[in-house]
Amino acid sequence: MQDNEFHNIVSEIMDQSSAPENQKVVVAQFELDNSPTELALLLESLPLVSRLEAWEQFSDSIKVPVLVEMRSDASQTIIQTLNDAQLIALFTGIGADTLLELQDVLPDHIVEDVLVRMDEEQKLHFSTAQQFDDKEVGHWCDRQALVVPGKTKIKVVIRLLRRKLPTYANAIFLVDTQGLWEGAVRLNNLLDADPLLLISELAENDFPALNAKDDIYAAADRVAQSGESALPVLGDDGLLIGRLDMGTAYKLQSERAESQLMASVGLDESEDLFSTVTKSSKNRAIWLGVNLLTAFLASAFIGFFEATIQQVVALAVLMPIVASMGGIAGSQTLTLIIRGLALGQVSSANLKALLTKEFKVGVLNGILWAIVIGAITGFWFDSMMLGLVISMAIVTNIISAAVAGVFIPVILVRLKIDPALSGSVILTTVTDIVGFVAFLGLGTLFLL
Amino acid sequence: MQDNEFHNIVSEIMDQSSAPENQKVVVAQFELDNSPTELALLLESLPLVSRLEAWEQFSDSIKVPVLVEMRSDASQTIIQTLNDAQLIALFTGIGADTLLELQDVLPDHIVEDVLVRMDEEQKLHFSTAQQFDDKEVGHWCDRQALVVPGKTKIKVVIRLLRRKLPTYANAIFLVDTQGLWEGAVRLNNLLDADPLLLISELAENDFPALNAKDDIYAAADRVAQSGESALPVLGDDGLLIGRLDMGTAYKLQSERAESQLMASVGLDESEDLFSTVTKSSKNRAIWLGVNLLTAFLASAFIGFFEATIQQVVALAVLMPIVASMGGIAGSQTLTLIIRGLALGQVSSANLKALLTKEFKVGVLNGILWAIVIGAITGFWFDSMMLGLVISMAIVTNIISAAVAGVFIPVILVRLKIDPALSGSVILTTVTDIVGFVAFLGLGTLFLL
Repeated sequence: MQDNEFHNIVSEIMDQSSAPENQKVVVAQFELDNSPTELALLLESLPLVSRLEAWEQFSDSIKVPVLVEMRSDASQTIIQTLNDAQLIALFTGIGADTLLELQDVLPDHIVEDVLVRMDEEQKLHFSTAQQFDDKEVGHWCDRQALVVPGKTKIKVVIRLLRRKLPTYANAIFLVDTQGLWEGAVRLNNLLDADPLLLISELAENDFPALNAKDDIYAAADRVAQSGESALPVLGDDGLLIGRLDMGTAYKLQSERAESQLMASVGLDESEDLFSTVTKSSKNRAIWLGVNLLTAFLASAFIGFFEATIQQVVALAVLMPIVASMGGIAGSQTLTLIIRGLALGQVSSANLKALLTKEFKVGVLNGILWAIVIGAITGFWFDSMMLGLVISMAIVTNIISAAVAGVFIPVILVRLKIDPALSGSVILTTVTDIVGFVAFLGLGTLFLL
Repeated sequence: MQDNEFHNIVSEIMDQSSAPENQKVVVAQFELDNSPTELALLLESLPLVSRLEAWEQFSDSIKVPVLVEMRSDASQTIIQTLNDAQLIALFTGIGADTLLELQDVLPDHIVEDVLVRMDEEQKLHFSTAQQFDDKEVGHWCDRQALVVPGKTKIKVVIRLLRRKLPTYANAIFLVDTQGLWEGAVRLNNLLDADPLLLISELAENDFPALNAKDDIYAAADRVAQSGESALPVLGDDGLLIGRLDMGTAYKLQSERAESQLMASVGLDESEDLFSTVTKSSKNRAIWLGVNLLTAFLASAFIGFFEATIQQVVALAVLMPIVASMGGIAGSQTLTLIIRGLALGQVSSANLKALLTKEFKVGVLNGILWAIVIGAITGFWFDSMMLGLVISMAIVTNIISAAVAGVFIPVILVRLKIDPALSGSVILTTVTDIVGFVAFLGLGTLFLL
């Protein structure tokens, strides 16, 4: 999708003076040209009123796939405006996979109502998925896998495959009469195969597989590493539950990256660009509150030095520099360690070596910037002693920041807390307090 | 790979008292059990001395694939220790794709030497790739695509496919005698096809394709959206240059996420966990220097109010709170807008609506936290007036932060600067200065 095309459609829909008929034509053409993912992105980019206007112009057949692709906060803004009759009309006939995707944004009684009308196979899919936590691959795997009983004749399989091939199906999966996994057959091995043989004779038994309880993101990585287009997902009992394909793996991977980005400021990846002001304010208030506690804590430490500041006001002028240099140096170490932890590269075996290296980097950068800042301060306030005090505080804070940057994420991971979410707040609390106390404390000792 | 297995191998290699023979056995077994990607992760997780020890124990055949998988800063630590003869021995016989991957970490004369010994086909691959910038898909695409001339008989194609199927090959690509793209044939359409027909009779001419000049990350997204396991990469003239498959798309996607994470603290994604202390210090010093300039700027503004601070020291105690609340509120808006820009959801068409919404969120959270902070401050310092002053400063700073959080990334993108890299520094400079000036300025007006 071209950016300016996107821009035009948004303009057209948002233009209050444009005739509704005009909008309708634009939207209809747009619907033809774009995938549900792109249409979902469009809807999300519209303020609430225009979003609903655009939505109403979508044809019914595209509405459900678009809702599935939207971030949950955004799809909720649409679902909220629909009454029960409209919701049931929209969702009757959807499959288990779709219902699973929308389960959290639909009212419970609608989920039940839709479920009751599903056929037995879909109901079974839905209840199997519910056995797994929504962080497990068993909950999310694709149940439309290309599966045949191992006792099928090859010619029957070929007839099946000729009709329509699902995406990412470079192999077909075999099960026995109980539905237990029997291996996979790659498509190229079917070319030229004897049509009268049983498909199980071509099975690769060592085809890699996922366990339904695997973490979804780890499972996505496993699929990518396998070099296969999709891997089977098996229950503990060896039952074939579904598959995870590269398309889903790719989506999971971008979802993970997005959720890390948003987590760093205390937000959820489902946060809607145009959620209502009250909802948005509420989502963000929590993080601001957490930050406020840490800010008051830092202030309390400054408070101990009121008498010193009154006599040497320059300390108040300069103290943010000490805190901020520590914060930046610490964040660099923190980020490097968080990446290392995510890649499984940080363990108790190399922690000491890492700490030593980061400590040395802290010493080097601490001394470098202590000299620079000390010199500038000395000239600015015409006081060698003040320059010396800030130098010592900078060295102290940058080195402590390096040590904190190594330990904080490692400890958080041990406590099973995501360091990407809370690491940074804890770190800056430490660097603020160490920075203020070191600078103001040294100032009290040497400048009064 | 299990985490504790990883831990054990790292411990074994780092254990100075362990016999080298022992290490050798451990490494040899590890090499059998793990992919080059996993071995690369292992090497990166080792401090420099142990990294070289482990490297020397790897068998020659695995060394090049492992180097390719390592981040460039880390592979350089190994390449630096090898002399020309060793490098040439190691790299003689590698393909164009491998040389392209390692081009930036190898000395120029080694690249030339290896290139001279390559066969003509590989030389051609290499020079074709060099025609494209390393941000373009033409530079990086896989040249081992499954390609046949359109005039090939189906039975010949089947014989070819039966032997060995490349990964992610759900379709084979057809070219004419000049190498121009003629379309694709999906494997399932070959099942049961008349072996005497020409393969071109089954060609899908509307199979999606990438242009060699497409941005690599955009190209990865296109492959994922297409639902195909790989897309052909075509030159402007319609020449088939190679393909981009889902495995590579997935890697590109994680590389992008990693580089965003690292960019947020001024680092490169190639940054090595154990690079030398001097190199590491240098890499980080630049960002610390940029931050120092902004910190001094903020201090200069505080400096204007020295007289006020001397009389009301409480202002110095509390001013970090005002700056930090603005910084957090602004980062939340900034992050939301950066994500929107990355998804193509922010354009001049909806900018005004976005600004309005963020402004309102700012007003709401501004008022909320102004009341909370004002009340606490009023009690703490037993001064209604000080409480009122900090309340006004908080409202001002949180609202300005929301506005800055919208405009800064939008302006940076217009200037073609990555907002993920510099957005946060600029934003906190703004919120620091606005916060200090508002608080100390209002303090001067009302408290003196």
